[in-house]
Amino acid sequence: MKHSIIQVTVQLLAVLIMICPVLAEDCIPCHLEKTPAAVRQWEASAHFKAGIGCEKCHGSDHAKIIKGEAKVDMKVCGACHKKALTEHNASRHGMALHSGWGCTRNLPARNQGECRFCHEDGGSVPQGGVQCARFLRQSSEIGEIGCNYCHSVESSCASCHTNHNTSLAIVRDPNSCAKCHMGPDHPQWEMWQTSLHGTLYTTAGIATGPTCQSCHMAQGTHNVSIGITMSSGGVPYPSQKAEPARKEMLQICNQCHSPEFGRKELARGDAVRTQSLAILKEAEKIIWDLSDRSLLDPMPDQRPDHPLSGKKLVTDAQMLYEDTSHIERLFFKMKKYDYARTIKGAYHQNPAYTHWYGNAELKMNLIDIKAEASRLRERGGIGAAAKKPADQATTTDRELRVLSNRVKRGEITEEQYAREKARLLEELKLK
Amino acid sequence: MKHSIIQVTVQLLAVLIMICPVLAEDCIPCHLEKTPAAVRQWEASAHFKAGIGCEKCHGSDHAKIIKGEAKVDMKVCGACHKKALTEHNASRHGMALHSGWGCTRNLPARNQGECRFCHEDGGSVPQGGVQCARFLRQSSEIGEIGCNYCHSVESSCASCHTNHNTSLAIVRDPNSCAKCHMGPDHPQWEMWQTSLHGTLYTTAGIATGPTCQSCHMAQGTHNVSIGITMSSGGVPYPSQKAEPARKEMLQICNQCHSPEFGRKELARGDAVRTQSLAILKEAEKIIWDLSDRSLLDPMPDQRPDHPLSGKKLVTDAQMLYEDTSHIERLFFKMKKYDYARTIKGAYHQNPAYTHWYGNAELKMNLIDIKAEASRLRERGGIGAAAKKPADQATTTDRELRVLSNRVKRGEITEEQYAREKARLLEELKLK
Amino acid sequence: MKHSIIQVTVQLLAVLIMICPVLAEDCIPCHLEKTPAAVRQWEASAHFKAGIGCEKCHGSDHAKIIKGEAKVDMKVCGACHKKALTEHNASRHGMALHSGWGCTRNLPARNQGECRFCHEDGGSVPQGGVQCARFLRQSSEIGEIGCNYCHSVESSCASCHTNHNTSLAIVRDPNSCAKCHMGPDHPQWEMWQTSLHGTLYTTAGIATGPTCQSCHMAQGTHNVSIGITMSSGGVPYPSQKAEPARKEMLQICNQCHSPEFGRKELARGDAVRTQSLAILKEAEKIIWDLSDRSLLDPMPDQRPDHPLSGKKLVTDAQMLYEDTSHIERLFFKMKKYDYARTIKGAYHQNPAYTHWYGNAELKMNLIDIKAEASRLRERGGIGAAAKKPADQATTTDRELRVLSNRVKRGEITEEQYAREKARLLEELKLK
Repeated sequence: MKHSIIQVTVQLLAVLIMICPVLAEDCIPCHLEKTPAAVRQWEASAHFKAGIGCEKCHGSDHAKIIKGEAKVDMKVCGACHKKALTEHNASRHGMALHSGWGCTRNLPARNQGECRFCHEDGGSVPQGGVQCARFLRQSSEIGEIGCNYCHSVESSCASCHTNHNTSLAIVRDPNSCAKCHMGPDHPQWEMWQTSLHGTLYTTAGIATGPTCQSCHMAQGTHNVSIGITMSSGGVPYPSQKAEPARKEMLQICNQCHSPEFGRKELARGDAVRTQSLAILKEAEKIIWDLSDRSLLDPMPDQRPDHPLSGKKLVTDAQMLYEDTSHIERLFFKMKKYDYARTIKGAYHQNPAYTHWYGNAELKMNLIDIKAEASRLRERGGIGAAAKKPADQATTTDRELRVLSNRVKRGEITEEQYAREKARLLEELKLK
Repeated sequence: MKHSIIQVTVQLLAVLIMICPVLAEDCIPCHLEKTPAAVRQWEASAHFKAGIGCEKCHGSDHAKIIKGEAKVDMKVCGACHKKALTEHNASRHGMALHSGWGCTRNLPARNQGECRFCHEDGGSVPQGGVQCARFLRQSSEIGEIGCNYCHSVESSCASCHTNHNTSLAIVRDPNSCAKCHMGPDHPQWEMWQTSLHGTLYTTAGIATGPTCQSCHMAQGTHNVSIGITMSSGGVPYPSQKAEPARKEMLQICNQCHSPEFGRKELARGDAVRTQSLAILKEAEKIIWDLSDRSLLDPMPDQRPDHPLSGKKLVTDAQMLYEDTSHIERLFFKMKKYDYARTIKGAYHQNPAYTHWYGNAELKMNLIDIKAEASRLRERGGIGAAAKKPADQATTTDRELRVLSNRVKRGEITEEQYAREKARLLEELKLK
Repeated sequence: MKHSIIQVTVQLLAVLIMICPVLAEDCIPCHLEKTPAAVRQWEASAHFKAGIGCEKCHGSDHAKIIKGEAKVDMKVCGACHKKALTEHNASRHGMALHSGWGCTRNLPARNQGECRFCHEDGGSVPQGGVQCARFLRQSSEIGEIGCNYCHSVESSCASCHTNHNTSLAIVRDPNSCAKCHMGPDHPQWEMWQTSLHGTLYTTAGIATGPTCQSCHMAQGTHNVSIGITMSSGGVPYPSQKAEPARKEMLQICNQCHSPEFGRKELARGDAVRTQSLAILKEAEKIIWDLSDRSLLDPMPDQRPDHPLSGKKLVTDAQMLYEDTSHIERLFFKMKKYDYARTIKGAYHQNPAYTHWYGNAELKMNLIDIKAEASRLRERGGIGAAAKKPADQATTTDRELRVLSNRVKRGEITEEQYAREKARLLEELKLK
């Protein structure tokens, strides 16, 4: 096969030399040997037809190219494709690394100070120096293939358009989205495929069954975030941001459905989101209570440092899935996988993802978290299951420490704290 | 895109007004704006070609339609499609809500009194007032998208045929079945796709590779339950019901295969089912024994009421996946997911679903259940791992209570009970 | 449908009787009734066109055929398809049962004596009498559908080519590989489908998107193992075997990519493999340490015999997923599922399989293993969490036993053993 390709391309070369002498002389002879697929795909591309040659995107400084200093990033493409670039930059795709970081900030009681990892005080534009704790703990190889392979969509059009082919047929096919939008943490691809929308697409074509692009890139926009009412981690936007977005999405639904239908479907998704967030919050409180009582195994101060927070317990956006206690790891799955599946399943009208892969897992995970908490409390001499209950003074000490932590985290008011503290000390006197 | 659709449809409208004046006058002008896809799909349908207009299915009382009081359910379709309706009603699809309930009654020792949830005493026709404990515990939103979205197949032809398109190409495509027959509890879609049947369909077309419909809707029947020898939860039918069903399925197999081959393949499925049921039963016994000894954490009387059984332990058809103990939740997965995958995988000839997603998970889950039982027994001072063994009188008391529960559940005979009780009391005297 | 098939084939029969009288007279009349699909597929096959009739492959002794003594195995096909057979036999497909066994020997510290299960002392050719512990523990039905259905590729061309169709279109379609190369232990099919290669194939066809066959059966070879640098279980080959294999794979990559690109991509896979193997090894050491301290629950001597190793702990190639302790079952998942997904995901450039289905699961599983180890140690009175610490003499005894086991397994040298032993005895004297 390789041989016949070479024969054909050598012939093509002769033609090329005549029609675009610079290119042919400089790049093609070698690259037919070195990167045959790249040449082949470029030859089949709209760029080729329009006379856009190698040097237009790659420049003509071969030494620089070799050293990897002439990357064809978004700015190169944007010089011609201005509208697409502007739309892209306004979307979540345009802040993919930031999005990667932002996507985990879905905890109701999160430390607001952490906003500064991404934002100037009070500002909404993300800074460049974003850090993701999970990324920081990866080897460079896992970081490359496991993180940046997808998150580089921020600065590389090739993420979707491929490198040299840049075929619209490829990029308008929903399969193109599958490369990144799949897996345990955001199986949008899988849930679309087996939704009514997806099965209609497969059985009756795009006129009847909408694709990812139909709803998320309506009218060909590159702003894939139009109409979204939450962060990529599922934290609901405040209403002043959510309401206009919802209106945008309803306009898209209304291309096929009645306004009432669209409104009802999306409102159901909102309700599922609120309910699921409450389950998450219940689980998170259990973990913080165990931490207050020094019952996590191991406690944060017995582990390798968290890359951003050191020895502190982290259950927010920057939560890790390594070197934590078992109960935190259960919570990680719950938050990152089960919650995402439930709510994205509901918005995409997929029963199995909403219910079985989502809601049922959320609830079973909560059972597991409670069971582990019960074991840890028993170990610590607390609760009905404890074998050797602690004496009253020790118990009061512990409860005071818990109270003090809760007021610091803003879970209870100063007033509630004072009242509870008084009650505990009174109890101690009586015994 | 929306604009050009409107232009085309406005022109179409002019034509429509001439050929079906009532319809056009009443519905189309508005609905081209309000539900454009519905109009478009109806226009492409066999109904349109046959002159069947909106009012034929929806009636002409617009006020009623708006209030949702003129639903196009199965009775409306059945007025014309009589044979399909009769076949559908005779099938599991025709009792989808009941089936949803029935699908979980796969426990060998289940309380026969519970048959009355579905059936008149001694009767086989299900009653209307079926209740599903898991459904009763859902929010209305999860109930809608997570339960009824699929289980409404009982009364809605649109579940498979879609609302206005009603294209036979859609409904004969196996992808149509994927919307419901997928996921952790019954991945029939996934296991067919990667079975020999499914891969032959994908690689060589329907002449060589049979679809869901080829075997489960042979000769176009709407009775999808022909040839099935168990409940949807995998409880084997008694032989007087199973034997004629098996004959029916073998006739379907024989369209392609030799009688001997079909018989052997299905018999293998039966054997896998029997073996898998035994593993389930072993796990269930462990849980009931822990319950007899008050070792579940939490015990049923420490939880929110079960919607149908209150404070009783439920491991049968009505088992919940929320607010139970950890060991019950492990059993839920085992019964609802692992068992289903193993046996359905075997009947659909999918090695990975039978073995790895099924049988291996069943066995690993049994390990987990035994490990958790060991922890709970240790906590309760029972067994080799116990730290503070109870005194003999307490032990005897406990064992007598367990015995008494076992005879009540019918696990042992009155005679066995009397013999065991005498032995325990004798032992106590000797010590 | 059955009827019309019969009509057509009866007519065809008349023609057949004229063109190939022996066949028609002997087999077709009956088999049109008994195995209609087989006849139909053979009629559409290249064999039919070339005049290859039933007796050429099945022989003409009908009694033998009926008794299953005339199986059309690889030798029958190989008589004509010599090159394919030779290539197949040189590949992992040609030793599928042995491969099934070999695939699990991925433990760094495995007992080298076990090589003799497959190999003559010092030899590299596997013996016939291979035994797989997991297979030996299956019922014959699970063994059939769950093990041999795929592993029979060793001796049956029909595994890929199907029985009578033998169409090249089927076998060149990547879907054909999905039947076996899927599932939790080796989801090559799933990870290719959502990789860049797979999505390009789906969206732009085979000229742009390579299939399984493009890379693993380049130039149509039947040696699917060309270019592979590890056992099917992921144990890296020694460099004298790995280096030439890597060169072969790079030649395949170079059909499309630059040599530098291919080298970098594969080297990244190697790095991920090394890192993942280290995580596995850490987990395995924890289990052996618990075993040395008799803390597994249950210990190997309290379980049914391992089919090959009896009462010994097995964490290598022959590890079981039934009747083990909970912590071993966690390790089974880690080794057989998580490790495979991580490294195969990396080599196939699939971010979600490398990271979320792979690396994250590996690390979360390690958390779970450490948590369970902590519980078991607490139960055994060891470590910070222990409730009733053992006295010094008992502790010293135990540590000496652990040391002695470690030196026997080759984890520490004789010298280290002597030094540690002296230190322990000194400590005892001081207390």
